[in-house]
Amino acid sequence: MPDPDGQAVEVLSLADVAAAAKAVTSAAVWDFIEGGSGVERSLRANRAGLDAVYVLPRILRDVSRQSAAGVLLGSPVSMPVVTAPMAYQRLVNAEGELAAARAAKVADVPFTVSMLSSVSVEELAAAGGTLWFQLYWLRDRAVTLELLERAEAAGCQALMLTVDVPRMGRRLRDVRNGFTLPPGVTAVHLGGPETSAHRWQSGASAVAAHTQQIFDPTLSWSDLGWLRERTTMPLIVKGVLDPNDAARAAGAGVAGLVVSNHGGRQLDGSAAGIDVLPKIREAVDGRCQVYLDGGIRGGGDVLGALARGADAVLLGRPILWGLAAAGERGVNDVLSLLREEFDHAMILAGCRDLADVRQLQVVDSRAPMR
Amino acid sequence: MPDPDGQAVEVLSLADVAAAAKAVTSAAVWDFIEGGSGVERSLRANRAGLDAVYVLPRILRDVSRQSAAGVLLGSPVSMPVVTAPMAYQRLVNAEGELAAARAAKVADVPFTVSMLSSVSVEELAAAGGTLWFQLYWLRDRAVTLELLERAEAAGCQALMLTVDVPRMGRRLRDVRNGFTLPPGVTAVHLGGPETSAHRWQSGASAVAAHTQQIFDPTLSWSDLGWLRERTTMPLIVKGVLDPNDAARAAGAGVAGLVVSNHGGRQLDGSAAGIDVLPKIREAVDGRCQVYLDGGIRGGGDVLGALARGADAVLLGRPILWGLAAAGERGVNDVLSLLREEFDHAMILAGCRDLADVRQLQVVDSRAPMR
Amino acid sequence: MPDPDGQAVEVLSLADVAAAAKAVTSAAVWDFIEGGSGVERSLRANRAGLDAVYVLPRILRDVSRQSAAGVLLGSPVSMPVVTAPMAYQRLVNAEGELAAARAAKVADVPFTVSMLSSVSVEELAAAGGTLWFQLYWLRDRAVTLELLERAEAAGCQALMLTVDVPRMGRRLRDVRNGFTLPPGVTAVHLGGPETSAHRWQSGASAVAAHTQQIFDPTLSWSDLGWLRERTTMPLIVKGVLDPNDAARAAGAGVAGLVVSNHGGRQLDGSAAGIDVLPKIREAVDGRCQVYLDGGIRGGGDVLGALARGADAVLLGRPILWGLAAAGERGVNDVLSLLREEFDHAMILAGCRDLADVRQLQVVDSRAPMR
Amino acid sequence: MPDPDGQAVEVLSLADVAAAAKAVTSAAVWDFIEGGSGVERSLRANRAGLDAVYVLPRILRDVSRQSAAGVLLGSPVSMPVVTAPMAYQRLVNAEGELAAARAAKVADVPFTVSMLSSVSVEELAAAGGTLWFQLYWLRDRAVTLELLERAEAAGCQALMLTVDVPRMGRRLRDVRNGFTLPPGVTAVHLGGPETSAHRWQSGASAVAAHTQQIFDPTLSWSDLGWLRERTTMPLIVKGVLDPNDAARAAGAGVAGLVVSNHGGRQLDGSAAGIDVLPKIREAVDGRCQVYLDGGIRGGGDVLGALARGADAVLLGRPILWGLAAAGERGVNDVLSLLREEFDHAMILAGCRDLADVRQLQVVDSRAPMR
Ligand SMILES: Cc1cc2nc3c(=O)[nH]c(=O)nc-3n(C[C@H](O)[C@H](O)[C@H](O)COP(=O)(O)O)c2cc1C
Ligand SMILES: Cc1cc2nc3c(=O)[nH]c(=O)nc-3n(C[C@H](O)[C@H](O)[C@H](O)COP(=O)(O)O)c2cc1C
Ligand SMILES: Cc1cc2nc3c(=O)[nH]c(=O)nc-3n(C[C@H](O)[C@H](O)[C@H](O)COP(=O)(O)O)c2cc1C
Ligand SMILES: Cc1cc2nc3c(=O)[nH]c(=O)nc-3n(C[C@H](O)[C@H](O)[C@H](O)COP(=O)(O)O)c2cc1C
Repeated sequence: MPDPDGQAVEVLSLADVAAAAKAVTSAAVWDFIEGGSGVERSLRANRAGLDAVYVLPRILRDVSRQSAAGVLLGSPVSMPVVTAPMAYQRLVNAEGELAAARAAKVADVPFTVSMLSSVSVEELAAAGGTLWFQLYWLRDRAVTLELLERAEAAGCQALMLTVDVPRMGRRLRDVRNGFTLPPGVTAVHLGGPETSAHRWQSGASAVAAHTQQIFDPTLSWSDLGWLRERTTMPLIVKGVLDPNDAARAAGAGVAGLVVSNHGGRQLDGSAAGIDVLPKIREAVDGRCQVYLDGGIRGGGDVLGALARGADAVLLGRPILWGLAAAGERGVNDVLSLLREEFDHAMILAGCRDLADVRQLQVVDSRAPMR
Repeated sequence: MPDPDGQAVEVLSLADVAAAAKAVTSAAVWDFIEGGSGVERSLRANRAGLDAVYVLPRILRDVSRQSAAGVLLGSPVSMPVVTAPMAYQRLVNAEGELAAARAAKVADVPFTVSMLSSVSVEELAAAGGTLWFQLYWLRDRAVTLELLERAEAAGCQALMLTVDVPRMGRRLRDVRNGFTLPPGVTAVHLGGPETSAHRWQSGASAVAAHTQQIFDPTLSWSDLGWLRERTTMPLIVKGVLDPNDAARAAGAGVAGLVVSNHGGRQLDGSAAGIDVLPKIREAVDGRCQVYLDGGIRGGGDVLGALARGADAVLLGRPILWGLAAAGERGVNDVLSLLREEFDHAMILAGCRDLADVRQLQVVDSRAPMR
Repeated sequence: MPDPDGQAVEVLSLADVAAAAKAVTSAAVWDFIEGGSGVERSLRANRAGLDAVYVLPRILRDVSRQSAAGVLLGSPVSMPVVTAPMAYQRLVNAEGELAAARAAKVADVPFTVSMLSSVSVEELAAAGGTLWFQLYWLRDRAVTLELLERAEAAGCQALMLTVDVPRMGRRLRDVRNGFTLPPGVTAVHLGGPETSAHRWQSGASAVAAHTQQIFDPTLSWSDLGWLRERTTMPLIVKGVLDPNDAARAAGAGVAGLVVSNHGGRQLDGSAAGIDVLPKIREAVDGRCQVYLDGGIRGGGDVLGALARGADAVLLGRPILWGLAAAGERGVNDVLSLLREEFDHAMILAGCRDLADVRQLQVVDSRAPMR
Repeated sequence: MPDPDGQAVEVLSLADVAAAAKAVTSAAVWDFIEGGSGVERSLRANRAGLDAVYVLPRILRDVSRQSAAGVLLGSPVSMPVVTAPMAYQRLVNAEGELAAARAAKVADVPFTVSMLSSVSVEELAAAGGTLWFQLYWLRDRAVTLELLERAEAAGCQALMLTVDVPRMGRRLRDVRNGFTLPPGVTAVHLGGPETSAHRWQSGASAVAAHTQQIFDPTLSWSDLGWLRERTTMPLIVKGVLDPNDAARAAGAGVAGLVVSNHGGRQLDGSAAGIDVLPKIREAVDGRCQVYLDGGIRGGGDVLGALARGADAVLLGRPILWGLAAAGERGVNDVLSLLREEFDHAMILAGCRDLADVRQLQVVDSRAPMR
């Protein structure tokens, strides 16, 4: 990975990629990516929760044939990682989602297409990897249906309904920056080149205004049923934190849950997913898959998340770091580093396969064993 | 909100208001407002307690018709917030309590008139909002009765008896500053323009001296009974922390409790209200309303307090910040920002009404789930 | 209290006294007083433990006749405080123990005479207050007996056997300073003006060397019995932390225990007394009094200690601060400030007497209520 | 101990030795010694865990005949300490392991010979102390057997199989430094003077590369059985953290376990040994000895480890500090200081022998008693 002066930057951890990305990204875009809502309590809680997870490695198991491979909703994956749906990736790189999706294909992990993608699902499908499609609930039901059909037609393997954005979180950095999309970057699935997300308002986030205009806050359990009937794709609900909701979703036949506080970008003061994962696992009781996101920054975090009960993790900001720093190659670096770290962590933890990982015992450093 | 140089200050959080207020307030008055007693352990505990509260949002509930409205002791309110009784508000603004009460009316929340108000209850009543009246227990029973009658006559909707000030806390900042009321600011309900609170003493707080002179430390449960019989206003006891006291008060027919350490201004080393709230809730068992104060600094805090068991919160210092920064308009800003934040938090937490909020589950980050 | 330049120093907290004392004390003596053993983990734990104690004040109790007075082993005291035995007080003031004992008399609290006092028990007795006498176990049994008799003859009201110094703790500050007693300061009870404590050794604490020479590490339960038979003074054992030892001592007929890690000066890594107090209380089950020392720095700490189960506290270093800063008057200031703070804390906590204080509920901020 | 300018350095704690060592060691070698893997979370957890251990000293026990002596696997030791196996000790001193082994002999504690020793087991045996031999599992079974025989022939008293290195941890400091062994320092037991550990690679640790080349990741429980049959030396398994593994190892007839996260050098995110020790103790239930390593930096830590359930500790980096600072004399200093501190701690904790130490009660400051 080259630094801005074209010097090679050693990439030994995702933090190295972040540094390289920050150096080439405008402050306002960086804030949009990195920021959380409010005073960013939930953003910090994601890392605090992961930093408190310590696992107990197993010993004396032949780990020569360790494999991180698994199957997520029918698609084989090289590791239990999915790229998180993230809007407007062309903000940081001209190729945007296309570069990221190609890198995901190389890494053999699903790429989740945000409904607010700045590259169309059809173009991404042409790249050939496993795609998942993320949906926000739109006021316009017809557009929703049309997108469903496009996603299915393009070969997407799963449909991820994000349920934690009845409105956008109060992201104060964006408000202070008056954050507005630049002309060339648009939500291509939603039509026309110019939206309210492109119209600067003093002391406001144009992206938030746009969201409020098009997202439908009436979304409820019955809509979930309605949606399920209209697609053959397995359905994932993204943004679950209360175990009662997890149980109900599992009962309602969803194929997967993303335990998530949306990277600390929605309700400031919502719990970190990692901290509720064990209770969610219990509530779901094997009826669907459980994914975690929020703060995953290395292979050790993936190991910890699985040990705490996740089937896989979604990786968010680090994908954008790679993209910003070096386009497709940067995302390749991020995913291969994560893979290397996770393989390494599995081997050191005595795990041959993901089932082993999920049986590791965990100590929480905030609540020591007695 | 203009800054001291007349420049508009963006107000995105109550901290912005605090900064604007501090810039225009004398150090001694600022210390009087912000300070706590002793080494300010209890003051800090209020924030530490709230900062440890993380909620689990609910999903897939139609939140298009969310409402923060409720009823507190018979009065409809737009949100579960009451302004805390605070003495001598003309210290920071010439209109003092009048400006604050008008803003409370606009925001549709009760304004609590301190017994030590620098504007009379009758003048405040003329402003037309819901007023509550706060009483300290005076050595002079006749004055107490007279104030009761004035409050009732002025149309106050509730009587709040503050029980945590048998003597004023040791507020070292005030002692070091030799804090003394300026000539124009007086406790208008208690008569004459000059009191011991206006007489500077070296190495002493004149306000504390005045308190000690007029407050009656013999106040006991039987006085509470006496008081209840002498007013038709519902009675609130302010300053409860022990669940046994809460149970006894509920049994004695009070209409509400304020769980409070008086903003860290009385016993340094008293627990934060937020930390005892669940046990108080349990002890009261629905027999009266339970309010929390201490450290509320945003809509997320209101959400957390309700999730932990409060029916409403009292908002203290931020009201004075608004008042100091820009008078009535400043308090408008504070209350509308709080409202905006709370509405927002409710929506993001999947809550349509206050009953929903009160059923949110809470994780304490100092005692993680296992 | 004058500062070194003769300016009056406002004393609002014991920390103010510490600052005044440090300004007039040599670095090596200051280190001797303030220091703990090892890396001073136990020293810090004392404060950390007290800083985690939050009490729940009681309300609506007539506190107009609050009194901090009590009885400790038959002697009436104005507050539940005893000065801790501390050696060589003439290190910081020419009058040494005499000044401190006079101040203790004024404050109406027992003064504990260290066996290593630099003023004799007879001279101190002439000052007229309540004296307790502290004993270390000497290799020379005859000297021990003689001291017992002198203490009894001088009218001491209690005998405190310190059991946590089979050898002196590794106080690295003293070792680095090569700490040695100055010529004029001696352990007057142990004879001759010059001891090994006065002989400088490179890279060693002369005081520690002296201790090792004269203290008897064979001290055991049977010696305790032997001692009890040889005195009519009630016996206190100082330096208990394990509840099993507390139970055994109570069973062996001691009148009091000091729960203490010796101010963090003995085993570095020993628990803070405050942290084990509840279990000790339980183990003792009313059979003897329980005192706490270590880190008491204000009236709020006294309140917290009693709420956690102590009958009284021993006050250590702050006595020396007062003595160093302004002799007898300085100790007067320390004790009257502590008294004022404790009275104040009692009143604010709704406590009329010490029995009330001991029934206060406590929240530990490191282990929040759920 | 002389500092680099030949001035005597006072050594009162192992931290003093570390400072002296760092001053004379190249940055890359220092990093190799001090560093951990990843972001060094597990490295820090070792100290955090030990720093949270507070013991309750016992009183009134004759400690005049205290002894730290014990027996570890048949060999009498002067204290419950063993030097940890550490590779390539000639990196910091020309005599390397020979100097360290001589100092261990003087201190009367076992010296563990790393398989990657830079001095041969035969040369070390000539020094005459108790030797233990540490084995990594090599791809080449013949070499393993040959080493076994050499160790036995040389009179080693125990065989320690390290099971937490199926691959070397990701030690980023070494990678950044391109850490490579200097020509003169080799793993003498493994033949030839030059290995891949000596061949510099850009952005890689040559030592890690070498490890991967020769270590066999297939090591499993059956190999343990195989090994046990091939040696008369008692077998120790090093690198256990999961209580289930501990139980199984105990059942499989091993003589000892080292509860260890390899000094934070293997899986970053693995728990600190000290934090799982009580559960391991329980699982093992007396069937074999239990040793702890990781972060032991003084006699107080040894006391804490034993109180938590260890029979002895392994001392790692401090041995290298002593060696780097002053060769054999430096290691003498380290071990005699540790001994002095441990004797001292035992006496202050009222312990006459190791059985007493192991019965001390422990308070964890992160989970206070209630
Ligand atoms: C810049 C950015 C854009 C995002 N856009 C979406 C989106 O369009 N849809 C969605 O469901 N989540 C979106 N998220 C949330 C992510 O899917 C994911 O929940 C979160 O980033 C995970 O946390 P992490 O970034 O700490 O890994 C976005 C996050 C970021 C940082
Ligand atoms: C300047 C000031 C004056 C106060 N005056 C009164 C008062 O007159 N009566 C009363 O019951 N409480 C009084 N309080 C306490 C508040 O009612 C309330 O309990 C506290 O401020 C809540 O904490 P907060 O400021 O952190 O929101 C006062 C607080 C402040 C800061
Ligand atoms: C300078 C100094 C000298 C002491 N001398 C004695 C002593 O002679 N006998 C004794 O039992 N304890 C002695 N102690 C311990 C105290 O009695 C007491 O346990 C400790 O100081 C309490 O902690 P604090 O200083 O934090 O209040 C001494 C403490 C200090 C600071
Ligand atoms: C420089 C170095 C080399 C090491 N080499 C080995 C080794 O060859 N075999 C082994 O089992 N452990 C090895 N270890 C791990 C130690 O045996 C021990 O587990 C660890 O250092 C204990 O932690 P401490 O250094 O904090 O005391 C090594 C550790 C260090 C620091």
